[in-house]
Amino acid sequence: MRKASPENRILNDGRAVRLAARSGALTGNTAGLALGFVQGNLVVLPEALAGDFLRFAQRNPKPCPLLGVSEPGSRTIPELGLDLDIATDIPLYRVWRNGELVDEPGAVDAVWRDDLVSFVIGCSFTFEESLIAAGLPMRHVSRGDNVAMFRTSIATKPAGPFQGPMVVSMRPLRPADAIRAIQITSRFPAVHGAPVHIGHPADIGIADISKPDYGDPTEIMADELPVFWACGVTPQSVIAATRPDFAITHAPGCMLVTDRRNTEYAVI
Amino acid sequence: MRKASPENRILNDGRAVRLAARSGALTGNTAGLALGFVQGNLVVLPEALAGDFLRFAQRNPKPCPLLGVSEPGSRTIPELGLDLDIATDIPLYRVWRNGELVDEPGAVDAVWRDDLVSFVIGCSFTFEESLIAAGLPMRHVSRGDNVAMFRTSIATKPAGPFQGPMVVSMRPLRPADAIRAIQITSRFPAVHGAPVHIGHPADIGIADISKPDYGDPTEIMADELPVFWACGVTPQSVIAATRPDFAITHAPGCMLVTDRRNTEYAVI
Repeated sequence: MRKASPENRILNDGRAVRLAARSGALTGNTAGLALGFVQGNLVVLPEALAGDFLRFAQRNPKPCPLLGVSEPGSRTIPELGLDLDIATDIPLYRVWRNGELVDEPGAVDAVWRDDLVSFVIGCSFTFEESLIAAGLPMRHVSRGDNVAMFRTSIATKPAGPFQGPMVVSMRPLRPADAIRAIQITSRFPAVHGAPVHIGHPADIGIADISKPDYGDPTEIMADELPVFWACGVTPQSVIAATRPDFAITHAPGCMLVTDRRNTEYAVI
Repeated sequence: MRKASPENRILNDGRAVRLAARSGALTGNTAGLALGFVQGNLVVLPEALAGDFLRFAQRNPKPCPLLGVSEPGSRTIPELGLDLDIATDIPLYRVWRNGELVDEPGAVDAVWRDDLVSFVIGCSFTFEESLIAAGLPMRHVSRGDNVAMFRTSIATKPAGPFQGPMVVSMRPLRPADAIRAIQITSRFPAVHGAPVHIGHPADIGIADISKPDYGDPTEIMADELPVFWACGVTPQSVIAATRPDFAITHAPGCMLVTDRRNTEYAVI
């Protein structure tokens, strides 16, 4: 978790984080900021691909839970934040051309196009807050690491050009804690929901659990089980593989912080 | 599952099963009868022990979920069945004196006492019906076996003379099915609820998973995990260890079938 600095201490709601990103005062990751407020992954695509991507998300709600979608060309998604500006309110963006990362700017208003559609996708920060509140240990959080993520042999359901393997995040938990974590995350279908796998990594195509494809390795103790959740990196990896002529995403860890509260997304 | 015989086909609600047991027409186990209706474990104790046992149940709701408790001396529990007679409506009883099994009669009206209190405790038949309805394989059911049960190193919380290890039932499931089973059984706290353990039998004191302490062994395939639920055998084993001067229970598999529907016990 980021250490509290004088500026960070006042970034305690979604709007404060967005304004700090917009002004350029905040350029780093958003972990630990605006606790209680929903943070989302950003994907921006040309309208020509938006219909296919919407169908992809509908067919793959666990890795790709949509929290909000903009009108074509619009930089706002009012239901996620009244004054939200998609092109300026994230600390760090990634700009992609033909599947290649070409820039990592602090704003994308200079490259904005009238045909762009923005998708905000749920992020595990929301359910991790509930897991931590329940007293469950999150080893990667307490170590200050990024969560371990793996490409799996679980195929997503294709739509148009979008297809590819599901990416999962892994958290090691003792069995009774794993059962509690399944209950808690089942309440949050809008942010990946219940795990997709537990206990047998090889059965979902993970050859070496100590070598994640993204993020940092997390040790699994002898009395723990690896628990796997569908991950918001899936749509980014699927989109990269389709090599669209133009796309924008957030930079890893630098999320869009919204005005919605995590608790709003608990279904029961 | 019991094969349907001409009599069994009409035993399709709780009252029909109870009347068949009362008349002596039904003397065997109740598995597969009156589908959809709650079946319960029976424990009958002298009133002098009833307060301690109630506190034991309150402290150990997962192995000992109380569905109904009689008034002292009464043979009825109206909320479980309007015409229910505890002393005659179970196909086969067990009578215990000083912790020893002394008789296995078809009715206990001849040995009834005015100081007896009856406890009806939830049974996994209720949640297994939901697991089967969800398409999850229950290997012991499809093989016609009794579920595999194990004494564990998990201690119950004591009350008065009642104490001892928790007994668990084990069902092997593939990981995705195990996650679904945790979700489904979490809806049924009145019938043992979510599992208490998954995946590491040795960590709960089970030395050999192929040798259950009660019931039949169930094979665990390489792509499965053993999933463990608190079991209604726990209170029976705890009571036997306290050696009360007098007690009555149902005989294994010969349950009290009530008028309540399984679906009534789903909390969400």
